[in-house]
Formats: sequence, C-alpha cells, structure tokens
Amino acid sequence: MKKNKRVGSLITELLSHPSKQYSYKDFCTKFDIAKSSLSEDIAIAGEVIAEEGIGKLETIQGANGGFRYIPSLSSNKLDNLQRTLASKLSDPSRILGGNFLYTSDLMFDSQLTRSMGAYFAGEFANLKADYIVTVETKGISLAADVAFMMNLPLVVVRREAKYSEGSTVSINYFSGSYDRIQKMSIAKRAVAPNKRAIIIDDFMRGGGSLKGVTEILSEFDIEVVGAGVAIASREPSKKKISSYLPVIYLDSIDEESKVIVASFDRAKNADNK
Amino acid sequence: MKKNKRVGSLITELLSHPSKQYSYKDFCTKFDIAKSSLSEDIAIAGEVIAEEGIGKLETIQGANGGFRYIPSLSSNKLDNLQRTLASKLSDPSRILGGNFLYTSDLMFDSQLTRSMGAYFAGEFANLKADYIVTVETKGISLAADVAFMMNLPLVVVRREAKYSEGSTVSINYFSGSYDRIQKMSIAKRAVAPNKRAIIIDDFMRGGGSLKGVTEILSEFDIEVVGAGVAIASREPSKKKISSYLPVIYLDSIDEESKVIVASFDRAKNADNK
Repeated sequence: MKKNKRVGSLITELLSHPSKQYSYKDFCTKFDIAKSSLSEDIAIAGEVIAEEGIGKLETIQGANGGFRYIPSLSSNKLDNLQRTLASKLSDPSRILGGNFLYTSDLMFDSQLTRSMGAYFAGEFANLKADYIVTVETKGISLAADVAFMMNLPLVVVRREAKYSEGSTVSINYFSGSYDRIQKMSIAKRAVAPNKRAIIIDDFMRGGGSLKGVTEILSEFDIEVVGAGVAIASREPSKKKISSYLPVIYLDSIDEESKVIVASFDRAKNADNK
Repeated sequence: MKKNKRVGSLITELLSHPSKQYSYKDFCTKFDIAKSSLSEDIAIAGEVIAEEGIGKLETIQGANGGFRYIPSLSSNKLDNLQRTLASKLSDPSRILGGNFLYTSDLMFDSQLTRSMGAYFAGEFANLKADYIVTVETKGISLAADVAFMMNLPLVVVRREAKYSEGSTVSINYFSGSYDRIQKMSIAKRAVAPNKRAIIIDDFMRGGGSLKGVTEILSEFDIEVVGAGVAIASREPSKKKISSYLPVIYLDSIDEESKVIVASFDRAKNADNK
C-alpha cells in the first residue's frame, strides 16, 4: 500500500475509534511495513489531525506502548461552536413561557452534539473516568457522542424504574426547573462499584438534576469526577453542584420583549486553561 | 500541502460530515490546487474508504456537482457486527423474566450503535428521507448515529407530552410487549408536513410501537419510507408494520433452561440485495 493510502487508512481507523489505544504492531502487520515507516505515517496523520483542529495523536512509550487519537476542539472550532449554539438559542421563537425554551432540535442535531462531544472529550481526557452518565432524554445524544469520543460506556439514568432495566436503585430529588420532587432510577447491573463517572446533560439551571445523578451514583460508591452541560443558566448563580463545564450560558429570557440572551465567556476561559 | 497530507485531510473532513455534499471548489481553495489534482486525491480517498469497508465516495456530475461520503458496512463488517451482537444478546444473564431481556448496555455501546448506524445509512441511502424518527429511550443513541451518518435531523417521540416540547400531538397505541395501551407524543414544531421519515428503534416485537410512530407521523402527513431495528423478535411472525430491516433476530428465550437464541440470516439477505 502506498504512503498516501496508508496515511488515509490510518486516519480512517483512528477517527472510527477515538481514544482507543493501538499498538505499532497492529498497523505494521496490516500495512506490511517496518516500524520506522509506520512512525513516519503516524507523524503525518498527527499533523493532519492537529491542523484540522479536531485533537491530537498521543504516543505511549514502553513495552505496552502504542498510540491513540484524543479528540478535542481547537479554540477556533470551539469559538465557532459557541457562536453557532448561542445564536440558535437566541431565536425568540424558542420561548415557551415559564422560563422554558424549546431546545430539542439543538440537542438532537448530530453535528452540534458531535462538536460538543469532542469539546468535552478534550477537556475531560485526563480524568480517568470509567463511565459517561446522563439522565434521559434530551442529553442522550450528546452523552453518547462524548462516550464515543472517550471510548467509554454510556449509562442512562431513567426517570422511572422500567421493567426492562431489571432491579434498580431509585432516589427522589428536588427539581428547581419543575419546582417539584422528581424521581430517577438506575439499573443495578448498569454500573460496577468504586468507579469514576463524568455526568453529561443538555441543560442545567440550579443543578438539582446533576446533584440527583451524583447521589444515585454514590449509592454504588461511584465518584463524579467531571460534569459537562450544553447550556447552563446563569441564574441562580449558586448551583447545587460545585464544578461543571458549560458550552454556553443562558443569561436571560425576557418573555415580554421576546429577547433571549446567551453568552459564552466563561466556557472560552475553560478552553484556555 | 503535500499529497499524503491532502488525502488525510480530505478523509478527515468527509468522515466528520457523512452524506454532506462538497463542491470541488471547497477543497481546491482549501488546498490551493487545480481540480485535476483534487480529482486524483478524491480517487485515492475513495479507494481507502472502500477498502476499509465503511462506504463509498459518490461523485455528482453537473453544474451543482461535487462529491460526498456515503457510509455503509461491507458484508464482512456487517457479518462481524451481527455475530458480535447475536453473541452478546445470547448471554443468559440478560434474562429478566416475562420474555424481557436486559439490553441497555448494548443499546448504549457507542461502537455497536455506530456500526449499526453505518449499516442502516447504507441500506436507506436512496430513500430520500427528511427525518430520522425514534421513540424514547433506548433507541436514541442508535437513531442519533443514523442521523449523523445520513446528515438528517433526528426527531425523538416522547412517551409523555413534556412542557419543554411546547404544543404536542399525542396518540394512544397498543403495546404488545407491555400488553397495555401506551401513549406517545410529538412536538408540533419538531417536524414540517409532507415529508418522508425513517423510523429507527432498538427492539421490535409485534411492531405496535413502530405502528404508533407511523400513526403519529401521519397526523403531519409524513410518510414512513423505511424502518430499521437493532433486534427484531421472530415471534409473532405477523407484525403490525409491513416492512422493516433488523440487524439481528431474537428467535427464542427459554427461561427455564436459560437459553437465548439469536440469529441473523434475513439481515444478511438484505445486505445482498
């Protein structure tokens, strides 16, 4: 196989399995080339991935060494994503009343969730997480993309204990958005104890829902090591969870004048850390 | 940019935006090369994609011409997917009683849903669909992958009319699996009338749920032009919908002897059509 085809084949494989570690041997055998030639191919593939602004190739030294593709978004791509999302969110036809906005089209737009997924994967790459966890329904597509990018299993917390989930653990929690007690439930066989989880959700107001997920995971001695949300409301400024990373902020909804304000300064700071 | 980097860059862009049509000009400008050189790069990228068994590059002639990546699975990759899925599904620890199996881990395994998504995208590529539609919850990850692969919006039908969906249309339908009347609901603003939809779901027994989705879409004069399910039960042999494409079949569950039989002969036939 010629060099330009090998680089293409390598990129195809890596983009299809983000965060998966490959050994040099995997590709030396596949391409029937020496390790020195493969190293050159990997260097070129790494340059392409970096220049496209979608992450980096990481090489791991030693006997169990190899390489893998770690997705992330370049500052430029993140800026585009945040501008696009903030602009779409500000469309006044989204106003439903009672401080609610229609966002299902955004949360099920696969190009948007894919970009957000790459962003969170890059920010959370070093947290040594075992699971991506979300609570149904609107964050599932985003959480699935993060799980794909980080090569981790996705666990979906259900609102009600479903028969098809087998035996479950359930909790009640207070949802500020709905101003009432809500339930969530997780299949016992969905998680193993003493692991580390990242929570991903579509929207956060007071953080009650994310705190609920943290509590239900603590029943399994699972520690929450990171939390990412597509859209975080600025108000209330005091959240029920201490640390979270939003893609953008929802600043205000003025129902009378039909003005929605969204911004993303703090998310940009997170990118520059 | 050197040729091997150009091919890599082209593949990166195409795999990140499946089914999106690009003009030659897009890349002639980006790479600062003539159309003849780009045509050579596209030919090499097309060879790589075909050899990797993940689809093909399609060129569109004429003034509005260009090219795009159409995902699909090679027979070989489909066979691997079906064997893997059937083998995992046959694990007797999945038996929950009452003819139910635990499948959430499979339906939220992003590598599995990604492969299934590529399979459906290839099979349904010529249906001129406008939407991918699923009903919450377990099919969302799969449906989102199909939507990504086909570059189409995903519409998620909810079990209950949620306030955050705005005004909705709801129907009642009979679920054979749960042996009772269930409800489903769709946001009025989620779809435009007189369009074409593909339904994707995780599991089908009698087809009541898919028939329900067909009915609720008919309220918007939306025609269902295709249906794909990850797992279809062989029984009952008479389904409530006439046409569907499964990845694998669930043949039988023997709770006493703890034996689950899964197979995939008809799905293979579909691949050979």
